[in-house]
Amino acid sequence: MKRLSITSNDSVLITNPTNILYLTGFVGVERRDAYVLVTKNKTYLFTTSLYLEAAQKLNVTVIEISREKPIEQELSKLVKTVAFEENDITVAEYNKLKKLLRLKPAKNRIEKMRMIKREDEIAKIKLAAKITDACFTYIVKRIRTGVTEARLAWEIEGFFKYRAGDVAFSPIVAFNENSSKPHYNSRSNNPLRKNSLILLDFGARVNGYCADMTRVVFLGKPKAEWVKAYDAVLQAQQAAISSNSRSGAERDRIARESIQKSGFDPYAHSLGHNVGLDIHESPRLSIKKDANLLPGMVFTIEPGVYIEGQFGIRIEDLVLLKATGIEILSHSSYNTFV
Amino acid sequence: MKRLSITSNDSVLITNPTNILYLTGFVGVERRDAYVLVTKNKTYLFTTSLYLEAAQKLNVTVIEISREKPIEQELSKLVKTVAFEENDITVAEYNKLKKLLRLKPAKNRIEKMRMIKREDEIAKIKLAAKITDACFTYIVKRIRTGVTEARLAWEIEGFFKYRAGDVAFSPIVAFNENSSKPHYNSRSNNPLRKNSLILLDFGARVNGYCADMTRVVFLGKPKAEWVKAYDAVLQAQQAAISSNSRSGAERDRIARESIQKSGFDPYAHSLGHNVGLDIHESPRLSIKKDANLLPGMVFTIEPGVYIEGQFGIRIEDLVLLKATGIEILSHSSYNTFV
Repeated sequence: MKRLSITSNDSVLITNPTNILYLTGFVGVERRDAYVLVTKNKTYLFTTSLYLEAAQKLNVTVIEISREKPIEQELSKLVKTVAFEENDITVAEYNKLKKLLRLKPAKNRIEKMRMIKREDEIAKIKLAAKITDACFTYIVKRIRTGVTEARLAWEIEGFFKYRAGDVAFSPIVAFNENSSKPHYNSRSNNPLRKNSLILLDFGARVNGYCADMTRVVFLGKPKAEWVKAYDAVLQAQQAAISSNSRSGAERDRIARESIQKSGFDPYAHSLGHNVGLDIHESPRLSIKKDANLLPGMVFTIEPGVYIEGQFGIRIEDLVLLKATGIEILSHSSYNTFV
Repeated sequence: MKRLSITSNDSVLITNPTNILYLTGFVGVERRDAYVLVTKNKTYLFTTSLYLEAAQKLNVTVIEISREKPIEQELSKLVKTVAFEENDITVAEYNKLKKLLRLKPAKNRIEKMRMIKREDEIAKIKLAAKITDACFTYIVKRIRTGVTEARLAWEIEGFFKYRAGDVAFSPIVAFNENSSKPHYNSRSNNPLRKNSLILLDFGARVNGYCADMTRVVFLGKPKAEWVKAYDAVLQAQQAAISSNSRSGAERDRIARESIQKSGFDPYAHSLGHNVGLDIHESPRLSIKKDANLLPGMVFTIEPGVYIEGQFGIRIEDLVLLKATGIEILSHSSYNTFV
């Protein structure tokens, strides 16, 4: 258990399941299988009879809740005022809680703690990145004419479920023109043709911690335009990685300008996002809203070029910002020929 | 597009992604990729530049939102007062919306519409149930000594991803003592021993619509206690199905009493739950809170017996309530020997 530092006399009610996992190690099935209350001296976990046994193995005081003993009633026996997660609690839940408690916003304090990774968290993310690299080696061998997006996605999922425990997110496999949509997540059963472009965006999850990587490879002879765009994106990506800037917006600007110099329009998404127990954590690296990058943050750097209806190229690495600069956690080859 | 019947002059803001899918067919990636506003005469879908192309294919008026054109601003150009989904909107979102709009609770009106399935929805659920039956036939052939829970779960997922599009939920595969926890969802890599019990709880998803089925099978020679519990659960399940009662609590009571008569303690969960675009929909069939079962509802009937640390038996069928009685949608054999 990671002790939340309580600076005043306030107690905090944690409802976001990822924040509950972060603070206590508890994993449920549905969103409200558990609630956590952190007071000055103690951490309480409220859960139903189904999870009592599992919860008692955690370093917390376990309190049972049920239809007859609802959360607001059990909470009010311990505290009068509580900070709540205003980005997680719904209006209906708020109305129930406020009948018995004084409420004030917790202002994302757990999310702020989660931005800077501890050593043990970094170790898990590094392992997830390593297994993601291993999966790339594995999956490249399975790319041949006739294979489908659905098949490759399933193979990636199977690899992670055996080696890592789980996927960080549903893998994206996009052939040719399907790669032109940055958010493509269908899975066609159309067989891969020779002379194709294959975009793979995937990551392992290890003990809850995510990795995230994108590679593009060519089967057979690539179109000249693909190779030109690939080189432009790789150059932009490496420039964004090499920068010493602590500004997310500045790194995004570097990549965009590099792509424009190569004669392409830059991507409509952001340069990257923090990664941890959630695949998308704050802050993003975006020209639209600057963010201070701090040592201990783990984030992606993933510029792209998308030619609507034709093709898309995105190259994404997971990186760790250290006091001395960036450490790249993804180690898969940028070689594009399979 | 299914027209929401607006009875007064009120407009409704739909934010729950499943409700958005139900009303418009829109599928995004993250929770707030789209918002829907239903007014007396028109349905609007608000989304970001990434989804404009996809949204324009739907039978709705599409409005772009962005950092500069936030949802509350675009909404306030169309309506002054709006009903909102109080079980979906967070407190932080509510505070933003209320700066520009008068808000009142929508009181789960979309969820209430979703309880009763239309003919086209029933057709999709029946197809999902049929593919689930086909998967059972497929997976039973793969049960042999040495196979692992992780392997079988992966095979089930692959089957559904090829045949149906997706899984309704992460399949549960539990060997022997692992089956004694009703919510077991780990996946052991321990090889299956001879003379084992295998619990399989799984379902296909077809165009968003879920199926749900549980079967228990025995490899080799079962323990006498397993067979006794199996017979008790099957008898209870069939009694709950055969009843003509329109009360969920009454059907739950029938199954519990049957299990007790057979000399076992009944399950700690409810008898079943409605199924549709979500795997768990309201109402549940539970002695704790009665629910009126209405024609057009699709739900599960899934009593069980769980002997802590030893084994669990659950038998689950998906059924449709019609004016004339129950139609069973799951057609897999109750034969337990593989």
